[in-house]
Amino acid sequence: MASTAVANPVGSIDRSAVERIVRQVALEYLGRGKDGKTPELVVQASSRHMHVSREDMDVLFGPGTELTYDRDLYQPGNFASKETVTIVGPRNRLISNLRILGPMRKQSQVELAFTDAIMLGFKDIPVRLSGDLKGTPGTVIIGPKGVVELKEGLIRAAIHVHMSPADAELYGVVQSDRMKLRIGGPAGLTFNNVYVRIAPTSRLNVHMDTDEANACGLHLTKEIELFK
Amino acid sequence: MASTAVANPVGSIDRSAVERIVRQVALEYLGRGKDGKTPELVVQASSRHMHVSREDMDVLFGPGTELTYDRDLYQPGNFASKETVTIVGPRNRLISNLRILGPMRKQSQVELAFTDAIMLGFKDIPVRLSGDLKGTPGTVIIGPKGVVELKEGLIRAAIHVHMSPADAELYGVVQSDRMKLRIGGPAGLTFNNVYVRIAPTSRLNVHMDTDEANACGLHLTKEIELFK
Repeated sequence: MASTAVANPVGSIDRSAVERIVRQVALEYLGRGKDGKTPELVVQASSRHMHVSREDMDVLFGPGTELTYDRDLYQPGNFASKETVTIVGPRNRLISNLRILGPMRKQSQVELAFTDAIMLGFKDIPVRLSGDLKGTPGTVIIGPKGVVELKEGLIRAAIHVHMSPADAELYGVVQSDRMKLRIGGPAGLTFNNVYVRIAPTSRLNVHMDTDEANACGLHLTKEIELFK
Repeated sequence: MASTAVANPVGSIDRSAVERIVRQVALEYLGRGKDGKTPELVVQASSRHMHVSREDMDVLFGPGTELTYDRDLYQPGNFASKETVTIVGPRNRLISNLRILGPMRKQSQVELAFTDAIMLGFKDIPVRLSGDLKGTPGTVIIGPKGVVELKEGLIRAAIHVHMSPADAELYGVVQSDRMKLRIGGPAGLTFNNVYVRIAPTSRLNVHMDTDEANACGLHLTKEIELFK
């Protein structure tokens, strides 16, 4: 062990380090159902992001502007856009470079992990399904062309599984059922409230947030099991 | 929704915001065993911290210096000290104000959540029980009087439960068994690998890291169940 005199060991964490905490590259892992017959399952960690309404897009990026396609997401028709915004929380704390996912929606919505919410100055944010925004906190959103004061729409997305009606039949579940997702490995755990979301075009796909992915060490395991 | 022209909406996240991400106040919650007969269980989120050896203390704070008592921890004889250090990760990223917990140990050890490890520039750190440090990564530690190059000792602490031999008998477990810990609530989940650590003086007490606490919304729930 080396010893050196250090007068004033004060360090600072640079901006890029902060960004990395919560914008880890989406992780994708495969698992199979308990019976071995169920289809391939992709489990992904969703980093914080935003969905934007037509009305708010007009304010943030200019009237009539469209989201710029950047890359496809796993669910058909969904994409990451090139557009980002800054959101402002209590006591003027900011999160910059918040990615907007397309296509546009009826109501704007910001999805954060709990860690993000703490960073932004919230003491808590509600765990909700996408689109279930009534009574959720708001935030100020800053775009290149204007500012939107979102009255509600800030949520921690509940862990959920997208699936087709055929997948649902295989698993024996219906819309809004809760399933369990077991993640193996050294930090293994079982998510007990995985909401079932069925749509004709959906691919079998679990979305969790970065807190959940970090807690279970999603990057470390190939042992994944979705069951009723 | 208000609209205002904003020329250059660039924000920065200040240092204190970063600190809050990972230094949330330790959370304490009570739960009972499945049978209702088991003793009161305290579940705590451990923020990142360090344990220091006598040898490293000499280098970091000066020969013969002692840790300064700040407050008791739940486990008898353990305490938070007033001393803090800065640790340096890959690519010279820093975490400052890392608290040292006392008493001193045979070997220095740094316990981080996975989020902390990412922030520090590590791609991963191993999940280990305290003291099981062989083959773990090292880090540079900066104290007011000197610098220690720790060759190994950086871990993500495996979730574990401290208990007395009497508690162990009640639960029907022995040293190094794994138990399950179910956390209810909207982000409810079950930790499947809770290591049993039995010692005569231990109080019944689960320690998880901040990633695990944030993932399960430990602050939101009173529904906690520890079982075999």
